[in-house]
Amino acid sequence: MASVKEETHKSRVLVIGGTGHLGKHIVAASIHLGHPTTVLIRDDAPSDPAKAQLLKSFIDLGAALLKGDLFDHESLVKAIKCADVVISVVGPRQVKEQTRIISAIKEAGNVKRFLPSEFGSDVDNVHTVDPAKSLYAVKANLRRLIEAEGIPHTYVCCNGFAETYLPSIGDVTAIGSGPPANKITVLGDGNAKGVFMVEEDIAAYTMRAVDDERTLNKILYMRPPANVLSHNELISLWEKKSGRTLQRMHIPEEEVLNWIKGAAFPLNILLSLAFSIFIKGDQANFDIDPTMGVEATKLYPDVNYTTVEGYLSRLL
Amino acid sequence: MASVKEETHKSRVLVIGGTGHLGKHIVAASIHLGHPTTVLIRDDAPSDPAKAQLLKSFIDLGAALLKGDLFDHESLVKAIKCADVVISVVGPRQVKEQTRIISAIKEAGNVKRFLPSEFGSDVDNVHTVDPAKSLYAVKANLRRLIEAEGIPHTYVCCNGFAETYLPSIGDVTAIGSGPPANKITVLGDGNAKGVFMVEEDIAAYTMRAVDDERTLNKILYMRPPANVLSHNELISLWEKKSGRTLQRMHIPEEEVLNWIKGAAFPLNILLSLAFSIFIKGDQANFDIDPTMGVEATKLYPDVNYTTVEGYLSRLL
Repeated sequence: MASVKEETHKSRVLVIGGTGHLGKHIVAASIHLGHPTTVLIRDDAPSDPAKAQLLKSFIDLGAALLKGDLFDHESLVKAIKCADVVISVVGPRQVKEQTRIISAIKEAGNVKRFLPSEFGSDVDNVHTVDPAKSLYAVKANLRRLIEAEGIPHTYVCCNGFAETYLPSIGDVTAIGSGPPANKITVLGDGNAKGVFMVEEDIAAYTMRAVDDERTLNKILYMRPPANVLSHNELISLWEKKSGRTLQRMHIPEEEVLNWIKGAAFPLNILLSLAFSIFIKGDQANFDIDPTMGVEATKLYPDVNYTTVEGYLSRLL
Repeated sequence: MASVKEETHKSRVLVIGGTGHLGKHIVAASIHLGHPTTVLIRDDAPSDPAKAQLLKSFIDLGAALLKGDLFDHESLVKAIKCADVVISVVGPRQVKEQTRIISAIKEAGNVKRFLPSEFGSDVDNVHTVDPAKSLYAVKANLRRLIEAEGIPHTYVCCNGFAETYLPSIGDVTAIGSGPPANKITVLGDGNAKGVFMVEEDIAAYTMRAVDDERTLNKILYMRPPANVLSHNELISLWEKKSGRTLQRMHIPEEEVLNWIKGAAFPLNILLSLAFSIFIKGDQANFDIDPTMGVEATKLYPDVNYTTVEGYLSRLL
């Protein structure tokens, strides 16, 4: 248990988007580390039973629920004034609207750290086509705005979500399926390295970083050595674990580009995100510039992260 | 070949979003039916070779390319002033921004028909959860704005895109895969009816409607009798065609809801759209109110549409 002295130094955290896929892990990790944690919520009595259950679980954990809205400036300023750290985990459709959070942070004037909704690849180091290209550009523009406004920040580049890519063994054409039985689709030659992070670990590393001077105005990259794998390596790992051999159906880069062009929403999003990860290798194809970024497993070697191999065991 | 008299009555068509998945079919169908057709484009020399090729094909077909942008009001008004019919086929990320088209149409003052980017389920008759719920709400709000402004319109509810749902035989967990070999995931009991339309046919019916008084200020529904099928019926049709039997893995409604809640972008979008189609049956669970809507195959029985069975033959 943390000592009283440590606890008094834990910053107060406001989570915006706390009911989402990653948000709920952030809320749990924040409380677990002893931060007084507030979750901004639009509706305190949602009709959706799963959402109502989630809000109840937040209260049970010890979070404060505060009614407010990204589109209600007053509510946002009020919420931010009671926090030291603001973590936005809003979804893709609200990423652009985070300019509203920036305005509110400026008005509130008390925020020590802002973590915008990044939680993916490093948007200043991606090579892809639309629609992913535009999605990344919106996040990059937001970085420039945060920097121009002089807001203390950390950008969290956790790379790929395990729960998105690993259940289908990296086959993005079958992203809601379990592991393939016989065939697997591989974009390109399958040799570009990706990074796959279990959501609980993303939250754990993120929450370690919020009060850490070493991550101030830096990018926090997550590249656990055991989780940096090419698609071919990922498939081989699964083949070894499952005792099955999969027929690898490679789609050449040019064909993937044409497919993206012709695909309807939301398959075109999936494919253009995957193009960056699995063909261009954008999550691991550069060295981290120490003036710009730090790597999470190096900063927090005591965090016992789930390896890709460990995650795959759950799928057996 | 159309007579001169007919041709003089063909309205001038402006397509916004013409390079997208459906847009390119709309452009081709518009020209095919003899409409002077202009495509609004942001960039007349795109670096993406696939896009450059598409623009060239538009010119070869006889379309006019006009430089302009949703976010450049002047360019929009200028483009609209030269058209009788404005067809928006913008993607989901720009649906909300169509308020800009509405403003420009009001200023231009000459438009005889506006088709906003609908091209899915009837957004006033859907039952689902977020994120699809919010996406549909944006389209519904846009309808209200069009009606309040008194803009002559047609809402095209073509229901499901064949190219999205049919290649995986309706398995939305494997939407980029080909037909499953052994197992198929079925949301719910698989008995709700969906509607699946080949993109070329959506464009053909849409373009027949733009000058038709019977579709003015109405919803144009597409429900070709041979293409209204439950997921179970679709699977059985494929089993008969392919000679394979698929193991149907049913996911109960409650589990689907929890899955959507926990899923990351963009799987959560796919699943929440599919919830409406495959569990709630929102594409075919109501009778068309003749004061509000008309059905395309009844209005244009001469259009020789591709049946689901015909489409499945292409997958063999």
